[in-house]
Amino acid sequence: MDELLPEPEPLRALIEALRHLPGVGARSARRMAYHLLQHDPAGADLLSRALAGAVHGLRHCARCNGFTEDEVCATCRNPKRDEAVLCVVETPADQNMIESSHGYRGLYYVLMGRLAPLEGVGPGDLQFDRLLARACDGVVREVILATNFTAEGETTAHYLSELLRARGLAVTRLARGVPAGSELEYVDAGTIAWALMERRST
Amino acid sequence: MDELLPEPEPLRALIEALRHLPGVGARSARRMAYHLLQHDPAGADLLSRALAGAVHGLRHCARCNGFTEDEVCATCRNPKRDEAVLCVVETPADQNMIESSHGYRGLYYVLMGRLAPLEGVGPGDLQFDRLLARACDGVVREVILATNFTAEGETTAHYLSELLRARGLAVTRLARGVPAGSELEYVDAGTIAWALMERRST
Ligand SMILES: [Zn+2]
Ligand SMILES: [Zn+2]
Repeated sequence: MDELLPEPEPLRALIEALRHLPGVGARSARRMAYHLLQHDPAGADLLSRALAGAVHGLRHCARCNGFTEDEVCATCRNPKRDEAVLCVVETPADQNMIESSHGYRGLYYVLMGRLAPLEGVGPGDLQFDRLLARACDGVVREVILATNFTAEGETTAHYLSELLRARGLAVTRLARGVPAGSELEYVDAGTIAWALMERRST
Repeated sequence: MDELLPEPEPLRALIEALRHLPGVGARSARRMAYHLLQHDPAGADLLSRALAGAVHGLRHCARCNGFTEDEVCATCRNPKRDEAVLCVVETPADQNMIESSHGYRGLYYVLMGRLAPLEGVGPGDLQFDRLLARACDGVVREVILATNFTAEGETTAHYLSELLRARGLAVTRLARGVPAGSELEYVDAGTIAWALMERRST
């Protein structure tokens, strides 16, 4: 259908580019393009600038691997956090959820993913060497593995547990109060606070 | 949840801006932002430029109201099209579908919407005066109303039919071969070709 109508190039390019968004196919990309051009050109302009600003203005925190504008993020720089405990999460969204439980005062390491052999995501893709260097700084005493309680998250936790314990660190996992098979982002803050309290050695 | 973690400003701005996309809520905006930053920064850059290019490079065709880079679009400039017939559609996607039926050689007018009293969309919002001026150029003899066969599309067709017939134009509607209640974009090309052939006076 795309070839039939001589579609103006900027429109074709926009529809194509919108497909880089996860979960957006040809049809919804087209609808999004029409909507922005017809009803919200100011929003499209805003989004254009926000994308450029985020891609060029953000980098990974040298300590926790989360997104930040600076060399080291505000959380890692916060002197009130307990530097002896490091909580490993899959994504910044999971970190947000743990913060919202008000049950944790330590620091974080954000994997930005999880082991997924079926998708070809291995330890090298997640730069586990960076996490190991961070955890073995001599200050961290305990690593809490807070990956998701999905098959991939459990695999990741198991794998990391071996690596970290071999280096003499205490390794714990969130208590199994979190319903099995669920993702942290969708769990209520109270359950997470409780699971933090009940965390156990792996 | 957004206030708890000191989220870097460019990330917050990106998540906020992604919500301008139709059907994208807070949670999927966040997932899209993480995905682009972590896995597809080149795609984000591309999308940023495509948005700017489309918003600043496209305008409405002076004749058919469709999107174009020029004063008048390629379809309206095509000397092989029959200038005596004007087909009125709701969106460029509908125009694409009609082109794909290979059953039409006339010109188009794109409403970029439809009457929707419940949403507060009236004749003024759709600039019906522009359509009337276009249809009354003295060359157009017949106007085919190809708005959707939904309640809003039928209302729009009925309303336009009155206006156009009062000005002495022949007004037809796509034959009711198109299943009632459906949207043109989702109908197969053969059915549309047949409905064009069977079009009737309103
Ligand atoms: Zn950090
Ligand atoms: Zn045109």
